[in-house]
Amino acid sequence: MSLPKRIWINEVSPRDGLQVWKEFVETKQKIKWIESLAAAGLSAIEATSFVNPKKIPQLADADTVMINLQALKLHLSALVPNQKGFERAIAGNCRAISIFTSPSNTFCQKNIGCNSADSLVRYASIIQQAKQKKLFVRGYLSCAWGCPFEGLIKTDDVVKIAFKLSELGCDEISLGDTTGQATPSSTQKLLMQIFKKLSSEQVALHFHDQYGRGLLNAYAAMQCGAWRFDSAVAGLGGCPTVPDAAGNVSTEDLVGLADEIGITTGINLAKLAKAGQEICDILGTNNQSRTGQTVLKLN
Amino acid sequence: MSLPKRIWINEVSPRDGLQVWKEFVETKQKIKWIESLAAAGLSAIEATSFVNPKKIPQLADADTVMINLQALKLHLSALVPNQKGFERAIAGNCRAISIFTSPSNTFCQKNIGCNSADSLVRYASIIQQAKQKKLFVRGYLSCAWGCPFEGLIKTDDVVKIAFKLSELGCDEISLGDTTGQATPSSTQKLLMQIFKKLSSEQVALHFHDQYGRGLLNAYAAMQCGAWRFDSAVAGLGGCPTVPDAAGNVSTEDLVGLADEIGITTGINLAKLAKAGQEICDILGTNNQSRTGQTVLKLN
Repeated sequence: MSLPKRIWINEVSPRDGLQVWKEFVETKQKIKWIESLAAAGLSAIEATSFVNPKKIPQLADADTVMINLQALKLHLSALVPNQKGFERAIAGNCRAISIFTSPSNTFCQKNIGCNSADSLVRYASIIQQAKQKKLFVRGYLSCAWGCPFEGLIKTDDVVKIAFKLSELGCDEISLGDTTGQATPSSTQKLLMQIFKKLSSEQVALHFHDQYGRGLLNAYAAMQCGAWRFDSAVAGLGGCPTVPDAAGNVSTEDLVGLADEIGITTGINLAKLAKAGQEICDILGTNNQSRTGQTVLKLN
Repeated sequence: MSLPKRIWINEVSPRDGLQVWKEFVETKQKIKWIESLAAAGLSAIEATSFVNPKKIPQLADADTVMINLQALKLHLSALVPNQKGFERAIAGNCRAISIFTSPSNTFCQKNIGCNSADSLVRYASIIQQAKQKKLFVRGYLSCAWGCPFEGLIKTDDVVKIAFKLSELGCDEISLGDTTGQATPSSTQKLLMQIFKKLSSEQVALHFHDQYGRGLLNAYAAMQCGAWRFDSAVAGLGGCPTVPDAAGNVSTEDLVGLADEIGITTGINLAKLAKAGQEICDILGTNNQSRTGQTVLKLN
């Protein structure tokens, strides 16, 4: 139960935040958004999603966004739901892709139009192509604690798919608490199973803050040796198929906690808070990060 | 590191929330507010403060509020900053009082007009009178982790005052994280010192959510055997002398977590969330409880 010396944070606001945003944000602003996050020290950013523009028009400019960010020296990834999306990612010089599945068949069907088992068949081919091109491949595993449509998800089912994604070639598995219902004990229970086969370098945690437990669960995960986390500035984020889904645990809260307890992040909290607020101003939304709000007031 | 089977929650929104509210809330609405919290199952509520009405006019009706709540069969307490306040509390048939001090001299001075040592002299007399009348006496110990004016506070200083308050006759000491800077490790470090002399029945934790760590710290405290917590519906609360102070950890988040991990609270979360929203509607403010917002959407 000792904490890591450093944590790696993958900022997901440009993808997770924008996929649920009703209005289209100008491409230039998206690029500025990501550049300001990079300037705050974030070394990993999920920039966009090569999803069907008819389904998520907010991200229709994924190709332009990705091409324009090439100069940034960081781990820049994009979500790729299918072969078509993969080909767009390749055309955009994307070096890291994220595929997406879930142990919940209903959730899979609603999001990618096939069930859980079929999604693995679909992705096997994409992962293989990506690895041939030496791309970094992340496998998202959504609803790892529970599903808004199917209820509680069995830990064994999550573990099986996580191991399968790894066998197929995923470099990293991101366990997503889409419903925000994880607790410290269920987080640690799942991770103890996961770490039987996967190393801490292969596992990220993606907590949504539906019940205010995102930071609590991240800390519980750290106590198990996890050090890779997804988060979003200002607590942005959501889920296209779950209208009431809350945002991700806020990057500011995560960095603030890490700073306070002596865990290195490489991120400048003051700059991060400023970037988070600028993004909220672009969107015209309230900043939902407690630490973000506080740091802005104190500086 | 085993969790308690039940936790006791002291709802502080009527005092902690209203003391920083700019507008005066009608007495009738304050009473309705407290009644709806009691109807949700809260068995302990800090109803008001017998503070100087010139300093905090929002609570000028403390006497009327207290008298009108006598029918409620619950642990109803009120803050008492001095002898005058104590006499008003007695006149209002108050059965439980809270006194208030801090290891920070500056914080004490700004709040109660004397330094830390003098506050203990002042309260020695009030506690004695209260115990003669068989009142329950809580001692608040604010800025137990840090002070907005004096910075970090030494754990030893906090522990000394906590023990002194107990020796003076306080039935319970509430350790207040006024600045919200506590972490799981600093919480556990402090509690391990505190529990050398005081039992878990004598200690409450009062976390503010300045950096989103309220729930995280409450959980860390539970792991040390603590089971008495202060919280406020909708994340209300603040501090009269610290303009940017955030609210308390929200009661909904605390109850939601307890429900999820099998800890008894005696509180009905759906009713609590509804009461929290009604209170926000009275104040015309946003509900800041993640769990509160979620429960309202799902029901």
